[in-house]
Amino acid sequence: MAEAQAPGLLVTHLPDVRYLTGFTGSSAALSVTPHQATLFTDGRYRAQAAEEVQGAAVEIVASGPAIAAVQWLAAQPGVDSVAFDPAHTTVADLARWKAELPAALRRRLLKPLEAPLVEALRWLKDEDELALMGEAAELGCTLFDHMLGFIRPGLTETAVAAELEYRARLKGAEGMSFESIVASGVRSALPHGRATAAKLPRRGLLTLDFGVILDGYCSDMTRTVCLGKPTKRELAVYEAVLEAQEMAVAAVAGGIACGDVDEAARSVLRREGMDEAFSHSTGHGVGLEIHEGPRIGKEQKTPLAPGMVITIEPGAYFPGEFGVRIEDMVAVTRTGGTVLTRSPKALIQL
Amino acid sequence: MAEAQAPGLLVTHLPDVRYLTGFTGSSAALSVTPHQATLFTDGRYRAQAAEEVQGAAVEIVASGPAIAAVQWLAAQPGVDSVAFDPAHTTVADLARWKAELPAALRRRLLKPLEAPLVEALRWLKDEDELALMGEAAELGCTLFDHMLGFIRPGLTETAVAAELEYRARLKGAEGMSFESIVASGVRSALPHGRATAAKLPRRGLLTLDFGVILDGYCSDMTRTVCLGKPTKRELAVYEAVLEAQEMAVAAVAGGIACGDVDEAARSVLRREGMDEAFSHSTGHGVGLEIHEGPRIGKEQKTPLAPGMVITIEPGAYFPGEFGVRIEDMVAVTRTGGTVLTRSPKALIQL
Repeated sequence: MAEAQAPGLLVTHLPDVRYLTGFTGSSAALSVTPHQATLFTDGRYRAQAAEEVQGAAVEIVASGPAIAAVQWLAAQPGVDSVAFDPAHTTVADLARWKAELPAALRRRLLKPLEAPLVEALRWLKDEDELALMGEAAELGCTLFDHMLGFIRPGLTETAVAAELEYRARLKGAEGMSFESIVASGVRSALPHGRATAAKLPRRGLLTLDFGVILDGYCSDMTRTVCLGKPTKRELAVYEAVLEAQEMAVAAVAGGIACGDVDEAARSVLRREGMDEAFSHSTGHGVGLEIHEGPRIGKEQKTPLAPGMVITIEPGAYFPGEFGVRIEDMVAVTRTGGTVLTRSPKALIQL
Repeated sequence: MAEAQAPGLLVTHLPDVRYLTGFTGSSAALSVTPHQATLFTDGRYRAQAAEEVQGAAVEIVASGPAIAAVQWLAAQPGVDSVAFDPAHTTVADLARWKAELPAALRRRLLKPLEAPLVEALRWLKDEDELALMGEAAELGCTLFDHMLGFIRPGLTETAVAAELEYRARLKGAEGMSFESIVASGVRSALPHGRATAAKLPRRGLLTLDFGVILDGYCSDMTRTVCLGKPTKRELAVYEAVLEAQEMAVAAVAGGIACGDVDEAARSVLRREGMDEAFSHSTGHGVGLEIHEGPRIGKEQKTPLAPGMVITIEPGAYFPGEFGVRIEDMVAVTRTGGTVLTRSPKALIQL
């Protein structure tokens, strides 16, 4: 609460609400004062909230949990300002909340937080969270092992995604972290190539980028494999991306600026004349959301801290030809990083 | 553009961008003036944008497509104000966009739309969209048929979800519209009960609520079936919910207020003393997003219009006992509604 710089805090971003209370429903707002916390949700979640919520009272409201939460805060003695999260509050929501307040409070009660507060707490995983994320990463690797035996020329990308997601579910995943990327042949040059009806070629690269959700926590991994024998050029690009990935992993440690980790990958690809082909950031934080802070991108000053879990995923893409990306999840420690993704990174030929 | 009441329009909500241009990437902003449209995206989507975008120029930017789009608009001759969508713009984004503008424009260039503009266009489906949504709904029904032969006591809810999602993928779905709800026994009393490791009981209700995505368009359906013989009370609740659902479907027609359709369902459950047990709205619009307007809720004045596709999904929930929900997708016509979900609604006993 000290960091909120206000006697009241409104939490409306659902992953933040879940992090603070355990509530997993799709409609909720949390009011926090130094003395108490109350979670507001609607009638659909009466039973679920009673079962899940810890550390907060629960109130069921007919509509608009956030408006109810704001009004509750406005009515607390001593709460003359309420911090809200401008990164997860729409302009329309803020206008609606204000419209429901007494005129005297409309202008001065609600104040945007200057920096992420709950999200920044979420960046730092505790031991239980790290164990769970290790399990999620391990499940991803087990699925990748299975897929190596399944993938063959002539299958559609969609059939590959279907098998992957089916096995994930059977092994206990609540779902996938994001729409699985299965991109073969020239489609591997699309960094975000969704699975399509395209058939796997007899020869060419295949990129799999996927993750599973376990107990709310996301995993994320990418491997690029080769159907048939790689060309010299494919091999050269693969080796460059792999070296970039390994250099960035080696650069990870508490206190290192995110931009320095990005530069560790980027400098390898620059040396190989492939910096233009590496058209995205090196990675991102991951946790209850598949994309969290910090961003491992060019010139990012944010320092890594022990307990963060980030992805390291450089790539190189040549439209009309092919692309390569290799991604691990890495838990930041005081002196380095623990790679959570154990799948091999040498080029696998199928 | 006339409805935007401004010479410039900024579109940042991705389903809106997709609707207007065909672009399916995860990072984009669209600038529109009466004379031209330009889509901004980042380097990851260079090849994909060239392939997909129709009716707009494409510019690749190093970071922040929305900021680039705002600056492009600010530089167009005659563009002295730009409408943006306050329902899909965060307070933080708006502040960032303004900070990048020349001081003279900061206060007066950006104006919130007073009503949804692109989203309201999306509510009205054309013939191609209706055909696609009919296909998506039909795929859902085919999957439900399959599941009737698969479901048996002792399976986990997760295994049921795995089978459902696997078959969906094999039959060409790009993904599920939302996390599939598989809620058995007492868990059927949770309106949003995710699939868990709970085993299907020998006797009790089972609610399946799921949808598939075809070419970006979502389907949505719910059926509650019974394992073993239903109790008298289960049967009575089922019959009441079914009657409520059918009355609401019968109330659908162009020009009818959404609140009247909601009331058609609610009045049946009220008559049966179950209005407290019906703890949510009757339905919602569906299309490129699983939840679109209009909301079919209490006292909603918005009139239905031909071309809208909505869900009709009343339910009744008794915590600690069981719950029932039945949901169809309905395409609104001038004089009524066309039910897109052909699966039977009489109680199925497995």
